[in-house]
Amino acid sequence: MQLTSIYNSIRKDLDKVEENLSLLSKSDLIPVPQLLNHSLKDKGKRIRPALTLLAGKVNDYNLELLLPMATAVELLHIATLVHDDAVDGSRLRWGKPTVSSKWGKEKAIILGDYLFATSADLVSTTENVKVMRLFARALMTISAGELRQNIAAYNVNITREEYYELITCKTASLFSMACETGAILGRSSVAVQSALKNYGANMGIAFQIIDDILDLTGTIKDLGKPVGNDLMHGTVTLPVLIFRETFPGDSRIAEALKHKGNWELVKKAVEAISGSEAIKEAYNVASQFCMQATKDLKVLPNGLARTAMESLSHFVIERNK
Amino acid sequence: MQLTSIYNSIRKDLDKVEENLSLLSKSDLIPVPQLLNHSLKDKGKRIRPALTLLAGKVNDYNLELLLPMATAVELLHIATLVHDDAVDGSRLRWGKPTVSSKWGKEKAIILGDYLFATSADLVSTTENVKVMRLFARALMTISAGELRQNIAAYNVNITREEYYELITCKTASLFSMACETGAILGRSSVAVQSALKNYGANMGIAFQIIDDILDLTGTIKDLGKPVGNDLMHGTVTLPVLIFRETFPGDSRIAEALKHKGNWELVKKAVEAISGSEAIKEAYNVASQFCMQATKDLKVLPNGLARTAMESLSHFVIERNK
Repeated sequence: MQLTSIYNSIRKDLDKVEENLSLLSKSDLIPVPQLLNHSLKDKGKRIRPALTLLAGKVNDYNLELLLPMATAVELLHIATLVHDDAVDGSRLRWGKPTVSSKWGKEKAIILGDYLFATSADLVSTTENVKVMRLFARALMTISAGELRQNIAAYNVNITREEYYELITCKTASLFSMACETGAILGRSSVAVQSALKNYGANMGIAFQIIDDILDLTGTIKDLGKPVGNDLMHGTVTLPVLIFRETFPGDSRIAEALKHKGNWELVKKAVEAISGSEAIKEAYNVASQFCMQATKDLKVLPNGLARTAMESLSHFVIERNK
Repeated sequence: MQLTSIYNSIRKDLDKVEENLSLLSKSDLIPVPQLLNHSLKDKGKRIRPALTLLAGKVNDYNLELLLPMATAVELLHIATLVHDDAVDGSRLRWGKPTVSSKWGKEKAIILGDYLFATSADLVSTTENVKVMRLFARALMTISAGELRQNIAAYNVNITREEYYELITCKTASLFSMACETGAILGRSSVAVQSALKNYGANMGIAFQIIDDILDLTGTIKDLGKPVGNDLMHGTVTLPVLIFRETFPGDSRIAEALKHKGNWELVKKAVEAISGSEAIKEAYNVASQFCMQATKDLKVLPNGLARTAMESLSHFVIERNK
């Protein structure tokens, strides 16, 4: 199913999120609109704000609260990307130069901070203390995850458990928060809040595993960044781990990680993994998390929101970019 | 008057702020306690958390709320320093290597983010929506100020007005928020909240002007960083502006700004300014802001808190580090 069909019931409100992001570029606090424009005008999938809106739609769809929340969730995501790219020294994101490669790490640091602050400011307009706490906690978890990943980089011996911990911190925590805050602002029952929190966490893990697979099997055109980007930056992902478990004697991954910054070696490792069963096996794992996510939705009343969230969990698995 | 005497009425609670900061180093989210330790265990003056506690003491001193708030205020300050040092490429802070010079800009980015998040998390424990909004807004103002300063760097032609705008964003907004949130959590009247907000803003401007003077007239031992550090990073401060207004034909400042990274030229410019009347004139300006800060306190009831805040405004002017 296409994302446009899945988003059908929230399309016009997701457009308002987009408008909100555009309006931020016109901030009079920031004298460089290009900087904001460059980061905010991307055509990302906007899955995170969609989750907030859909979670809010389950019960009492209060757009006045859900709109700033959904915008904040996407803004927090963008802020982490701006900083991540500066940390990794990545040159491309969504097919365009990253802020740090175009304007330098310094501007990326300050712009990311400003986007974090703006997202916190938007959340505070909901005047919901629980939501504000969850937001701050997610930001802590994400940045702690980034630090752990940074320390684990180029370590060929990380375990599956460590991998799951890392992606839970850096990706699932935000998906989970996006859903839970939507449920809270939509005044859902505690049971539904808890179900959506779990749904988001499982979706986040599945989403990240697929991202990690696509990094090896995609094209630069679809990905908007080089194939093998993760390995290039020393990030050891699930397909890599599975390949290593299956072929412990194969040295191509260890070689690519050992000689940092060597695209030739990365390419060889990518060929090895993408031609192996490790990809299928990683897909199976992602599918299991998606199935669990769908199961989490069972306590939700039937309706457009639930159907869309079920479809979204399938989309996450089937997407090719 | 010494800071220890001024802090007398809040000494034991300021020690608790210090304990809170120490405890953060033991976070199990962050696997590198040295990183946190290095940033948090500094012997800064802790003026910002002191302001929050003193502002809270004016009426209803509720330590359960004021303590996390005061800790958050200092933590936000530390987070901005970690990022600023990465942006400026500064090597020394408080006499020690900066996080970015010791562990790299990448770790500094992630650590700063984690500290921002932790500060927001602490503020959210107050469960006070107004306080949370002011905190998020201050973070926006500070990061916007950093971006403006970064863009204005090495521009010899900035005006006094632009200088005041910059220091209002990057320093006064935090002082002001530290005071106003203390007043709110201490359930002071709206009039007192407003007075303390203004007191903080004026104190912040005075504090920054003195900081800018000391950068030119201090010693590396007292400052914990090289003399002339601001000029070295292209930051044009009030004494520099005054010197340029007084001696428009003197080319030493323009030369130092033109040849980035040349300590010899910075030294010559520092000698020119520090031996001129520009220092005294800048002191006069700072004193006026402090006098205004003291006047702001007039609506406060007499008591230990007001006396301490009056003394603090004098300390800010008289300090030599």
